[in-house]
Amino acid sequence: MPEGVNRQWLLAARPQGEPKDSDFRWSEAAVPEPGPGELLVRTIYLSLDPYMRGRMNAGPSYAPALQLGDVMVGGAVSRVVASRNPGFAEGDIVEGRTGWQDYALSDGGNLRKVDPALGPISTANGVLGMPGVTAYTGLLNIGQPKAGETVVVAAASGAVGAVVGQIGRIRGCRAVGVAGGAEKCRFVIEELGFDACIDHRDPDFEAALRAACPDGIDVYFENVGGRVFDAVLPLLNTFARVPVCGMIAHYNDSAPPSGPDRLPMYMRLALTHRVTTRGFIVWDYQDQYGEALSDLSGWVKDGRLKYREDIVDGLENAPKAFRGLLRGENFGKLSIRVSDDPAG
Amino acid sequence: MPEGVNRQWLLAARPQGEPKDSDFRWSEAAVPEPGPGELLVRTIYLSLDPYMRGRMNAGPSYAPALQLGDVMVGGAVSRVVASRNPGFAEGDIVEGRTGWQDYALSDGGNLRKVDPALGPISTANGVLGMPGVTAYTGLLNIGQPKAGETVVVAAASGAVGAVVGQIGRIRGCRAVGVAGGAEKCRFVIEELGFDACIDHRDPDFEAALRAACPDGIDVYFENVGGRVFDAVLPLLNTFARVPVCGMIAHYNDSAPPSGPDRLPMYMRLALTHRVTTRGFIVWDYQDQYGEALSDLSGWVKDGRLKYREDIVDGLENAPKAFRGLLRGENFGKLSIRVSDDPAG
Repeated sequence: MPEGVNRQWLLAARPQGEPKDSDFRWSEAAVPEPGPGELLVRTIYLSLDPYMRGRMNAGPSYAPALQLGDVMVGGAVSRVVASRNPGFAEGDIVEGRTGWQDYALSDGGNLRKVDPALGPISTANGVLGMPGVTAYTGLLNIGQPKAGETVVVAAASGAVGAVVGQIGRIRGCRAVGVAGGAEKCRFVIEELGFDACIDHRDPDFEAALRAACPDGIDVYFENVGGRVFDAVLPLLNTFARVPVCGMIAHYNDSAPPSGPDRLPMYMRLALTHRVTTRGFIVWDYQDQYGEALSDLSGWVKDGRLKYREDIVDGLENAPKAFRGLLRGENFGKLSIRVSDDPAG
Repeated sequence: MPEGVNRQWLLAARPQGEPKDSDFRWSEAAVPEPGPGELLVRTIYLSLDPYMRGRMNAGPSYAPALQLGDVMVGGAVSRVVASRNPGFAEGDIVEGRTGWQDYALSDGGNLRKVDPALGPISTANGVLGMPGVTAYTGLLNIGQPKAGETVVVAAASGAVGAVVGQIGRIRGCRAVGVAGGAEKCRFVIEELGFDACIDHRDPDFEAALRAACPDGIDVYFENVGGRVFDAVLPLLNTFARVPVCGMIAHYNDSAPPSGPDRLPMYMRLALTHRVTTRGFIVWDYQDQYGEALSDLSGWVKDGRLKYREDIVDGLENAPKAFRGLLRGENFGKLSIRVSDDPAG
């Protein structure tokens, strides 16, 4: 039975706009002991993802809001360190919503076992985890890309965007990414194999995106909002599909942007161009998780699906790294290494 | 061969905002003669529909814009008065886009034959024509109403809205209409059988709509935009569907409404509530036209689908009636009686 301290990050205050240090509180608790049917896991890789910003707000989203004083929500790859649950053995690697902390108790219901044969266990937070399955299910169910079409995705070097564009390529589409900075754009084209990648900091961003999409846009996988969405709108083709996965550009908004009100324009565009817009979260397609992981790991193994990780050491650095994520400072799937990876 | 004059309404100028008298020009031309393979039809009922406002603009919509000097576009029920086309005989009743005029030539490709056994021929402009099929295909393909759900539609006494709500009822849904004025609301509830109908002129409109939708809104059939859409947004349930059929409240807009910009809010709602928004026009479902007419006429005959017509006499009154349509002044499906109905 492990002894010592369970370090945790708690929600201290609801952020106004961008989260501040004082919105998080460091806490040190005793390591809990599993009761009958329970198991204790120790966090190895804590995943940091944009959706967490929404969970810090009071308003309802697709999941209940965190309460003040709760451990910050988050998925993580962990190792089972004690088990009184027959479904799990000490040493198993698992993934689930165990939070920003060293240790967590579980009855097993919120955990999936990670098969280390599929890839490095850190990828269970990324390409072979929630972000990869999000890209897979949203693109294939809602985006429905067909060979020869153009798929556009922002945050293209990120955990979800990178997979969206590469699946687009696998399906025979033209994949156009948007990313922040020349280095990320180079990576997206040269390493991930996108057909083009536009830097959203480019003053001529709108014109560059248009030039990169000579046949318009058939699928826009929406995970950022803001200026990228604005530039995409006039390029949408008739019968375009817009899976809405996230709106990171607006997560820190405390009030709607100033006018004019473009909502009527968008609805009219939806009508004249018969655009389908549909929001989703990965759990809407829970029954496809196994199939998605199987396809994704096959593509990783045969070299058609590349990924990049951005791993920051130390649980104490989670709030800072999370703030950087919301500003686009990470480069690849962001995780915090909380304890040693047994394989590496 | 008929002699005399072919009276026509031409597009004289592109409207700025609400169309004015001077945007239309009356013209009197010779009645044309059909060449080989052609037929000549005489208009009986000219249909007036909101989409026509969009066709008067210069910008591209789902159909090419009218050119200045063109005969105003419009569907109509007509009688074949001369035919050199083996598919049509003198006396046949047909429906098609023959325009705001007494006579039109056709090669038959833009016409469908109207079966007078299905119902009064005027209904080929309404419940057994484009508006009815629009309601049917948009509601069933995109709205996908399930028993026990709540379907909301505006312009509920109009040609499309009336059919949407009644099909919702046939499918076992709660049907809530929105209409302008107590008389229309009474008609929608008492004659059309909706569960509720809210007057959008009511100062407490938002609260009244909320009270009429105690379980939220699962399908919002969007055909008006404006204040109704605003009131619907906070009531949308998770996995709600929004078929976008029209935005009549905005057809006369010459600039976007003032801010704040609610487009990011809408996209975020799409995400958190996994709302599907999809624009459509009836021609997207052209292959379902026959099935739709068959179902609709069956429901009319067995009394489950009621309709109301608002028929104005005289082609000369078309611009005035059209302007009234855009202001919601008609009560039921609006047609102009251009010449005598042989059956009535």
